[in-house]
Amino acid sequence: MSTTLTTFAYPNSTKIHLAGLHHPGLRIAMREVALDPSAQEAPLKIYDTSGPWSDPSYDPQKPLPGLRQPWIDARAPIEGAVTQLAYAQAGIITPEMEYIAVRESLGRPNAISAEFVRSEVAAGRAIIPANIKHPESEPMIIGRNFLTKINSNIGNSIVSSSIDEEVEKLLWSIRWGADTVMDLSTGEDIHATREAILRRSPVPIGTVPIYQALEKVKGKAENLTWPIYRETLVEQCEQGVDYFTIHAGVRLKYIQLTANRTTGIVSRGGAIMAKWCLHHHKENFLYTHFEEICELLKQYDVSFSLGDGLRPGSIADANDAAQFAELETLGELTHIAHRHLCQVMIEGPGHVPMNKIKVNVDKQRELCNDAPFYTLGPLTTDIAPGYDHITSAIGAAMIGWYGTAMLCYVTPKEHLGLPNREDVKQGVIAYKIAAHAADLAKGHPTAQLRDDALSRARYTFRWQDQFNLSLDPETAKAYHDETLPADGAKSAHFCSMCGPKFCSMELTQQLPAHKQDDTLITIS
Amino acid sequence: MSTTLTTFAYPNSTKIHLAGLHHPGLRIAMREVALDPSAQEAPLKIYDTSGPWSDPSYDPQKPLPGLRQPWIDARAPIEGAVTQLAYAQAGIITPEMEYIAVRESLGRPNAISAEFVRSEVAAGRAIIPANIKHPESEPMIIGRNFLTKINSNIGNSIVSSSIDEEVEKLLWSIRWGADTVMDLSTGEDIHATREAILRRSPVPIGTVPIYQALEKVKGKAENLTWPIYRETLVEQCEQGVDYFTIHAGVRLKYIQLTANRTTGIVSRGGAIMAKWCLHHHKENFLYTHFEEICELLKQYDVSFSLGDGLRPGSIADANDAAQFAELETLGELTHIAHRHLCQVMIEGPGHVPMNKIKVNVDKQRELCNDAPFYTLGPLTTDIAPGYDHITSAIGAAMIGWYGTAMLCYVTPKEHLGLPNREDVKQGVIAYKIAAHAADLAKGHPTAQLRDDALSRARYTFRWQDQFNLSLDPETAKAYHDETLPADGAKSAHFCSMCGPKFCSMELTQQLPAHKQDDTLITIS
Repeated sequence: MSTTLTTFAYPNSTKIHLAGLHHPGLRIAMREVALDPSAQEAPLKIYDTSGPWSDPSYDPQKPLPGLRQPWIDARAPIEGAVTQLAYAQAGIITPEMEYIAVRESLGRPNAISAEFVRSEVAAGRAIIPANIKHPESEPMIIGRNFLTKINSNIGNSIVSSSIDEEVEKLLWSIRWGADTVMDLSTGEDIHATREAILRRSPVPIGTVPIYQALEKVKGKAENLTWPIYRETLVEQCEQGVDYFTIHAGVRLKYIQLTANRTTGIVSRGGAIMAKWCLHHHKENFLYTHFEEICELLKQYDVSFSLGDGLRPGSIADANDAAQFAELETLGELTHIAHRHLCQVMIEGPGHVPMNKIKVNVDKQRELCNDAPFYTLGPLTTDIAPGYDHITSAIGAAMIGWYGTAMLCYVTPKEHLGLPNREDVKQGVIAYKIAAHAADLAKGHPTAQLRDDALSRARYTFRWQDQFNLSLDPETAKAYHDETLPADGAKSAHFCSMCGPKFCSMELTQQLPAHKQDDTLITIS
Repeated sequence: MSTTLTTFAYPNSTKIHLAGLHHPGLRIAMREVALDPSAQEAPLKIYDTSGPWSDPSYDPQKPLPGLRQPWIDARAPIEGAVTQLAYAQAGIITPEMEYIAVRESLGRPNAISAEFVRSEVAAGRAIIPANIKHPESEPMIIGRNFLTKINSNIGNSIVSSSIDEEVEKLLWSIRWGADTVMDLSTGEDIHATREAILRRSPVPIGTVPIYQALEKVKGKAENLTWPIYRETLVEQCEQGVDYFTIHAGVRLKYIQLTANRTTGIVSRGGAIMAKWCLHHHKENFLYTHFEEICELLKQYDVSFSLGDGLRPGSIADANDAAQFAELETLGELTHIAHRHLCQVMIEGPGHVPMNKIKVNVDKQRELCNDAPFYTLGPLTTDIAPGYDHITSAIGAAMIGWYGTAMLCYVTPKEHLGLPNREDVKQGVIAYKIAAHAADLAKGHPTAQLRDDALSRARYTFRWQDQFNLSLDPETAKAYHDETLPADGAKSAHFCSMCGPKFCSMELTQQLPAHKQDDTLITIS
């Protein structure tokens, strides 16, 4: 194993492990941030995606613990399926489900119960991506009634990047809060890159298998065949990939609907399948072989992420006939996959102006049996290349509020080039913001705890607590210190934005109605 | 005049001037971006806030032209008022109104008429901030039925910054697209800083006069008096400030409503007035002298920006009793100001979760006679200091869509320190994105032209056009060139994100339905 991998700890934080109730042996990991004694507040628990990598007791030279292996070993398939959906419909609360309930509740009793997790999975409204060959993953859930999740894309392309760089991008992504990571590698060493990523990943890993299949036919889409694709699926199932993007909805008859678009087909998988369909003038083989794919995936509990190959790539193309025709087919496929006890989520756009976002969620829910929605942004304008993490964070926050379960990040390099380390960080943080804003708006029972703790710290000039509770403590501190670097400024009742005479918070605290002894603040 | 001021030109762009219809002498400035000949498209017109500073024929050593001086000289007061509202209600289409109609229409006939501008101003639904002592300003309008505007805040505080730096921040702000700029200086040299800014500004300048009044009483809020404040207003009216933030809604009886807040009073002006009210146990002198303020402002056509001194400073405090009580008073004051023929806009929050944003607009419209709303963000979460340009761009885009007329930017340094040049740029661009996303969602008649032009450039691999049409051409180009710097890559049919084999746009163009000759693309 590489010795260059980054481990890290969060400032003033401890990795803690809570016990389960149904399965008392569980050790459910989360982070606790200690606060300044003057706050007289308990440490704040924070949902933590970083796995053992932020645990000082973990030796990065050792393989990640196979957390889920004993759970997997202890259960038998149901109707040939080892999926969480199969167990949920059989009334079984798996250890994964209970882990998720405690994790999402941050240990608060009565926030989210294991039974609620089971019932949402049983209904197909949520999925737990958890290939039995990836026991290293810490259970997490994707569903509208849970914390909004975010995905970070990594992966090399033929013109850039190495295996070590990709593993570093994985660790870097989860350090900042990515809930799942997709390996979109298309260049050399696809198999080895994926292996390196999976064996180090405490979060579910997704892929787009058509990319590797295309490499096998030397990039000639028309030479793709079902046997080559199926072989690729088996290879990736065996490695432990947790969900597959499968563009089975790009049907032959829909392709003509894109002919007058401003930006044609902007999904790589969609464009590949369109090329195959038109060349052979045949129906998409992913569509015609869909039940066989279900038969395979349910033996591993690989979740479907039904790809939106015809998503709009510009404001002009948003919500057009091609997009919604494909969505209907994704709905049809969702019902088939659910019948096979496979877990399913549905991918969504893309480029969509704000006024056209909500109908995407409404249609998706209706057509796809309320399966979780997983969208790329959407970008709310086309005019800001270099800032598409922002154009899309706007759309992502809104679509998350409307009920989208997972948001695929967009980096500042979107449309321009392969993201580097800093781009990945900027993308993940923009999406943590969007997801958290969505959770506040949805009223997730634990979402506002962190905002409230940070705002109390802000109001009482506990600068260090404010930094430590934020999404990016180092940056917050560095920005503050740019103008007021002295240690004393960390307890000053102002910053350089307003200066000492004009700090509204300080002025407020001088008001009779607000007077409080700084050393004796009690928080109700 | 300083010789260090930045002039600048936009890439492949020309400053053009269109004529008026009612007032044929008008020269209405905008920018035109020339496109690659292969596009066979006319140059794209873009709304331009930079004034003569981006015009190569302008000599920065000379004073800015007094564009509006002849128009101002040619008209008489109506009922003691020289306001655009007074003229509009008298049925007069001023040159300012026509300038705005052509500017917002980008020269397209039948997009927005001068009569429509007049009628919106007459109804109080839009304002044209245009002090007769600031003839250098290019007319612009703030109203829900026009392009969403953005404001950039500059100004020194006692711990940081100089006059030259502030003027540079002005030019820097308008270069990236700020529609108005507020000078929030609180340190030394307030008068001289403001003078330097006004004489160089082609955009309206706003201030918060209480800041300077407070300097006059050595920072002791309780020593403020109506005469000192009034004298400050006169001084700033005479200098040419175009709008004043006035915290007249912070009434004595509302202050107690903030006592149990998480973050108290976070408006500097609000906190100052609250301190004054409680110290004297008297009603806010801005409220009791409001009609006298109207009498003064209408002689200059300084617009009111009624401050929200009790806006929420945290998610926990959003939409609380204090905030909405003040809004009711702002409604009462709006009606008084309109009766005096003064132009008015209303300031709004702050920190608000997404699900609580819309009601802010609905209440404001109802209570304030549909006067334009001008909000600070809102920030949709408290947990991301260092990234509050993003947390707030989400809220700003949404509230803009719901009908907010102007968005006050937030920089990455918010809550942490005084923004520097790069922070100002990041804040302005995030807000241009939010405002433009709002314009697309509102269906402004010229908004989508730029998205469509850029997306066509993207789809046909006119990389340089894509950069030139974007909000920040230099950054877009630099990001692209990071991995593919060669000149040849500017015409390549891929970028490093996907590589040559996996470019979906290239794949699409190989499809029979999409086949096109690159040299003969015609755009319908």
